[in-house]
Amino acid sequence: MKPCQIITLTTDFGLQDSYVGILKGIMLSLTPGLQLVDLTHTIPPHDIAAAGFQLAQALPHFPPGTVHLAIVDPGVGSDRPALAIALAQAWLVGPDNGLWQAVLHQHPAQAAVQLNRPQYWRTPKPSPTFHGRDIFAPAAAYLAGGLPLDQLGDRFELDQLHTGNPGPSSLASTKRWGHIQGIDHFGNLITSIAAAALPPRPWELQLQTSDPPKTSRIEGATTYSDRPLGVPLALVGSHGWVEVAVNGSSAQAHFQAQMGDKVDLVEISEI
Amino acid sequence: MKPCQIITLTTDFGLQDSYVGILKGIMLSLTPGLQLVDLTHTIPPHDIAAAGFQLAQALPHFPPGTVHLAIVDPGVGSDRPALAIALAQAWLVGPDNGLWQAVLHQHPAQAAVQLNRPQYWRTPKPSPTFHGRDIFAPAAAYLAGGLPLDQLGDRFELDQLHTGNPGPSSLASTKRWGHIQGIDHFGNLITSIAAAALPPRPWELQLQTSDPPKTSRIEGATTYSDRPLGVPLALVGSHGWVEVAVNGSSAQAHFQAQMGDKVDLVEISEI
Amino acid sequence: MKPCQIITLTTDFGLQDSYVGILKGIMLSLTPGLQLVDLTHTIPPHDIAAAGFQLAQALPHFPPGTVHLAIVDPGVGSDRPALAIALAQAWLVGPDNGLWQAVLHQHPAQAAVQLNRPQYWRTPKPSPTFHGRDIFAPAAAYLAGGLPLDQLGDRFELDQLHTGNPGPSSLASTKRWGHIQGIDHFGNLITSIAAAALPPRPWELQLQTSDPPKTSRIEGATTYSDRPLGVPLALVGSHGWVEVAVNGSSAQAHFQAQMGDKVDLVEISEI
Repeated sequence: MKPCQIITLTTDFGLQDSYVGILKGIMLSLTPGLQLVDLTHTIPPHDIAAAGFQLAQALPHFPPGTVHLAIVDPGVGSDRPALAIALAQAWLVGPDNGLWQAVLHQHPAQAAVQLNRPQYWRTPKPSPTFHGRDIFAPAAAYLAGGLPLDQLGDRFELDQLHTGNPGPSSLASTKRWGHIQGIDHFGNLITSIAAAALPPRPWELQLQTSDPPKTSRIEGATTYSDRPLGVPLALVGSHGWVEVAVNGSSAQAHFQAQMGDKVDLVEISEI
Repeated sequence: MKPCQIITLTTDFGLQDSYVGILKGIMLSLTPGLQLVDLTHTIPPHDIAAAGFQLAQALPHFPPGTVHLAIVDPGVGSDRPALAIALAQAWLVGPDNGLWQAVLHQHPAQAAVQLNRPQYWRTPKPSPTFHGRDIFAPAAAYLAGGLPLDQLGDRFELDQLHTGNPGPSSLASTKRWGHIQGIDHFGNLITSIAAAALPPRPWELQLQTSDPPKTSRIEGATTYSDRPLGVPLALVGSHGWVEVAVNGSSAQAHFQAQMGDKVDLVEISEI
Repeated sequence: MKPCQIITLTTDFGLQDSYVGILKGIMLSLTPGLQLVDLTHTIPPHDIAAAGFQLAQALPHFPPGTVHLAIVDPGVGSDRPALAIALAQAWLVGPDNGLWQAVLHQHPAQAAVQLNRPQYWRTPKPSPTFHGRDIFAPAAAYLAGGLPLDQLGDRFELDQLHTGNPGPSSLASTKRWGHIQGIDHFGNLITSIAAAALPPRPWELQLQTSDPPKTSRIEGATTYSDRPLGVPLALVGSHGWVEVAVNGSSAQAHFQAQMGDKVDLVEISEI
């Protein structure tokens, strides 16, 4: 795999500070001419699962040889490993705290190294609170500039990679129950039920919201405009997961839904 | 017109999801080395007029051969046309749902094609909910990479372009009445009265707000600092429209103004 | 110093309008192929000190020859000077209203010119409300494209540069009292006490919040995870200033702290 000079950035740094700009300045200092692409910087502070979900959605759409830098790092300064990971078609750089779980479920790791060689850090004494600046951004820039993975540090055993919770099921799963794993800007509710689980139509989704406790039945459809404005529907989202939407408005507001609410996919018997 | 490798992006996708990053990944996969410029991604969901207004303001400031990708697409998956349009100096790519109205008023279309050739889509089976990813982003990347417009699809008759509401008047209009057509981040109220309508001074603007109903008279001026801090003024904004401002603070808050509020420009007779 | 084709942008323009995109279109029209890096556009409207603080943090991390364009310009259209300033390793472009103070404290100006030559403006009649578009963005693009500083305008005496308030102390200062000079996205409270002021441990920080009036004593530490989740600590932040944090959450919320609150660094005598 050859680098393609693209680095994506996913952080919980927000947009008010120049922290993201600092990462970019460092990377451009080490490898001029990079193409830097923001995925998102408004991950809720320390929400590792949200970062992993966004990255897993975006990763397949980038050219082979892209470096994905992701920094949501509540354990910065502790002994959680700092890694660079090679996939078949891309590299990942960031803390190994569970952030990579959703990605690695779809794109298995080929090799990993610990970022433990100070000659590739910004400074031999990195700030204990900003490894993004001092360790991760330089590593991403070196990889995008063509440095071989094994130069960056010692091998890290793949079976030591952080697994934590089982995480979202794979897009190949045919499991018909799950939970809300994401809520997007439009208020669409993205479930952990994959398109592969769909029966021959007709089907419906049963959504259990908790505040107040209630079960809603939502008919399966193909696209938003299959229903009149304001009417809920369930469909396969562009990411490949079953999602709940309301044509022209927010399903989150409509159902008072929350992350983690339970969902079941049910075949409707014709009468 | 030759492409200049620049693509601008205008969407209502927000900043929390990786949807915008996905568009960029796809475009960079098809045409490496593009310069991607975000205009805004915080258009209120489905607000076609707001997107058109932002784009019309920005378009004249980009080099000839820029591609403007704009996706505010409440009718995604329905049969609204998906188009690429050639202007004298730029291309537009997106849904034809009224989004282009403000731009086309100032910059007439020279030619348009429907994006109906699957070989230029990301996949022959596009997601019914994300044509941005599967149809529009690839089309923008192909145009920026030098593919002729007519390759992308069949000709679309210019008199079929969506017109809808009459939209904002042209910057050449001398009409002295209008409405608030935009409210910016600073709370400046941008009217639909053009600079061309200004009489020889003195003049004032009369603003009718509705909640509570009230008419305010605002004296014409040249720049913010022509008035003390906290004092309202009317002036020609940088975009060429008459706007209402308050030096050092927000005219929206000062007047409790809203989009669509009526305005009249009145000459003041010297006594 | 040779330009490196990078321009950073710092404004209070927000993210909803296309104003930032317009700056980029103009710069790319004048100097194709630029690398444009956003530092932040969510500076509170007209908050010159906040813009200066963000820029001072980011500037040292960019390659030599970077142009930093910063536009927080409440006095636009008045007679505040419009300047380009050469530092040893970078250029600054923007209004001279105090914006550059924090930067110039760390990186002394070598030379400055007034942007008073209309041939380098976007138009000989610049908008009185948007010098960013008509004067500053073109100047930044010309500098990044290799135009010598002295071409852009007449020399401006360095002792005439806006100084205003004394501003934050230097990172070399050993003063042990100060105030909250910044609050970041995570709620970390960044003081104006520099790392150089730290005694041999142990030490603590005393924070005086005002609403309600209260003094809190916060123990010195090295990194966030030195304390259990939810426990406050004081440490040297990545920027080199002493900061107050709470492991895993927001010190701003924990202490009800505000910009300007007083802090004192105190050695703890061992008993």
